[in-house]
Amino acid sequence: MKAAIFNGPGSIEIGERPDPRVEHPTDAVVRVVMACVCGSDLWYYRGESEHAIGSIGHEFIGVVEDVGADVSSVAVGDLVVAPFIFSDMSCPHCRHGSTISCAVGGSFGNGTIDGGQGEAVRVPLASSTLVKVSGSGHSDATLKSLLTLSDVMSTGHHAAVSAGVKSGDTVAVVGDGAVGLSAVLAAKRLGAERIIALSRHADRQRIARDFGATDIVDSRGEEANQAVLDLTAGIGVDATMECVGTQQSIDTAAAIARPGSTIGIVGVPHGIVPFDATFFRNIAWRGGPAPARIYIPELLDDVLENRINPGLVLDFETDLDGTPTAYAAMDDRLAIKSLIRVGSL
Amino acid sequence: MKAAIFNGPGSIEIGERPDPRVEHPTDAVVRVVMACVCGSDLWYYRGESEHAIGSIGHEFIGVVEDVGADVSSVAVGDLVVAPFIFSDMSCPHCRHGSTISCAVGGSFGNGTIDGGQGEAVRVPLASSTLVKVSGSGHSDATLKSLLTLSDVMSTGHHAAVSAGVKSGDTVAVVGDGAVGLSAVLAAKRLGAERIIALSRHADRQRIARDFGATDIVDSRGEEANQAVLDLTAGIGVDATMECVGTQQSIDTAAAIARPGSTIGIVGVPHGIVPFDATFFRNIAWRGGPAPARIYIPELLDDVLENRINPGLVLDFETDLDGTPTAYAAMDDRLAIKSLIRVGSL
Repeated sequence: MKAAIFNGPGSIEIGERPDPRVEHPTDAVVRVVMACVCGSDLWYYRGESEHAIGSIGHEFIGVVEDVGADVSSVAVGDLVVAPFIFSDMSCPHCRHGSTISCAVGGSFGNGTIDGGQGEAVRVPLASSTLVKVSGSGHSDATLKSLLTLSDVMSTGHHAAVSAGVKSGDTVAVVGDGAVGLSAVLAAKRLGAERIIALSRHADRQRIARDFGATDIVDSRGEEANQAVLDLTAGIGVDATMECVGTQQSIDTAAAIARPGSTIGIVGVPHGIVPFDATFFRNIAWRGGPAPARIYIPELLDDVLENRINPGLVLDFETDLDGTPTAYAAMDDRLAIKSLIRVGSL
Repeated sequence: MKAAIFNGPGSIEIGERPDPRVEHPTDAVVRVVMACVCGSDLWYYRGESEHAIGSIGHEFIGVVEDVGADVSSVAVGDLVVAPFIFSDMSCPHCRHGSTISCAVGGSFGNGTIDGGQGEAVRVPLASSTLVKVSGSGHSDATLKSLLTLSDVMSTGHHAAVSAGVKSGDTVAVVGDGAVGLSAVLAAKRLGAERIIALSRHADRQRIARDFGATDIVDSRGEEANQAVLDLTAGIGVDATMECVGTQQSIDTAAAIARPGSTIGIVGVPHGIVPFDATFFRNIAWRGGPAPARIYIPELLDDVLENRINPGLVLDFETDLDGTPTAYAAMDDRLAIKSLIRVGSL
């Protein structure tokens, strides 16, 4: 089959990989319909993190093409959303809600295991991993939103859940990338009354407003910190979502959180979390990779019933052959997030 | 009046300070009955943290001797517990449960404001700070337990609350000082089923067992980490209480927490919280100085009804003149925590 191949920093090529097939009774093979490029794929692309040569991409929706004998929850022909991690949902960690730590789980597109940026994927532990989408004739907008549940919208939701966003809260989202914008939408969905989005880009501010942001802070660093404090009478926000991971964004999160609140952090920390500095204000730090498999069912209902439209973050699109341009557009900051149309329904 | 005076590292002397009197309508004057020495007092004593020359001590119970015109919740003659911070309970931070961040609050025994280690204390914001103890004829054991609510037991409780200890949990307490032992008791009180106490001292292990510890790990570092993982089938504990603050204890907390769980941290961090290392396991860090004023009422009921006996951590006692020996006993690790009997009921 045709698939995107990671050939080292800066190099994504379209090449051939073995056609996936059912190897274990718990496997399914999914023909990819849509995939996208994750902010974390960019770290590999930019050489900031290691990635093995080979398959890449971990966000996709598709149609089930074959299933092993033990796969019962999905059947051939089903439209499915794949979370970015496969998991058995029955090990102690999964039962505690930490699918990312599944004892027998793993990542798609890690160089060896099939990636979403390819024509098809062998999905291990398919029954407990894939989420079937009911109905038919879904619009293109709906399909794009379903695709975001695979990772980015689930991750934004994880930021909001980790931060403890609740009805009536005043919250802030640090970061206007696709995850930050998704966190705005997630906070709105959880009932936040006032949502302060830190964004310096007009196109992203527009989506943030569409998603529910009530205030935009378009500065950075100390100036941004002060702006958020000014908006909250010097108190700070009830819940903070850190969706970047740089030292500056981490420090901003620490500065704008009110005493006793929680910072939901989903940007992989590329800086020091200054716990000692927030300790005396009783500020908690909670987060990590999202347990997407757990969140997808509830978010899926909202997508299918048109209550949320997270697919709006996908503002660039191409086909599988164009995958290199999908990376380049994000790397050059020409796109918030790139959609790759791989196959038809 | 007579009071302990902090004269610089290693030097606690008994001297004279002005008799406290009502200066503001919201003040009360409390005659101290019992005080104790905090682990944080030792940092000053050891020269590890700065402290102004002057008053010291922030844990005390006593009898109200005078009240200002605006003090309504306590009256002359009442036995009261003072939390280690005074607060107005009505500012935004107090209303959110963060009394430590009270906009108009402050610390007892900071060099200028009267300390608990003296004959009497002017208590600002007395109505919202002091907690009246009902009844009379309380036993000496009860008084000692009431004294611990001022800080150490409330802090142990904060570790357990911050860690999210709930009924049926398997938990671990890192640290067998007075706070760690109090955290064991707090975890038991919150329904933890299995409580692993990390302790290398027979006398402290005995109190830990009395307080509800079901397992003792008497090693440190990697060996302790492995022992806790072995006790939990390699999964880690549901809730971790970090009650020391050294790099080793922080790292142990990080190693033994199960994915998705929370580390309640009340030991002031004297090391780096390795958030990046726990991020991929979705481990949260929550804690800070305890909002003792909020916890005291519920803990008080349990003390008065003999359901908990946190005063057992006070294993050394002296009178006000003996305050220097109270510090020395803790500094030399001859005492877990030192009681100072200042006055009679």
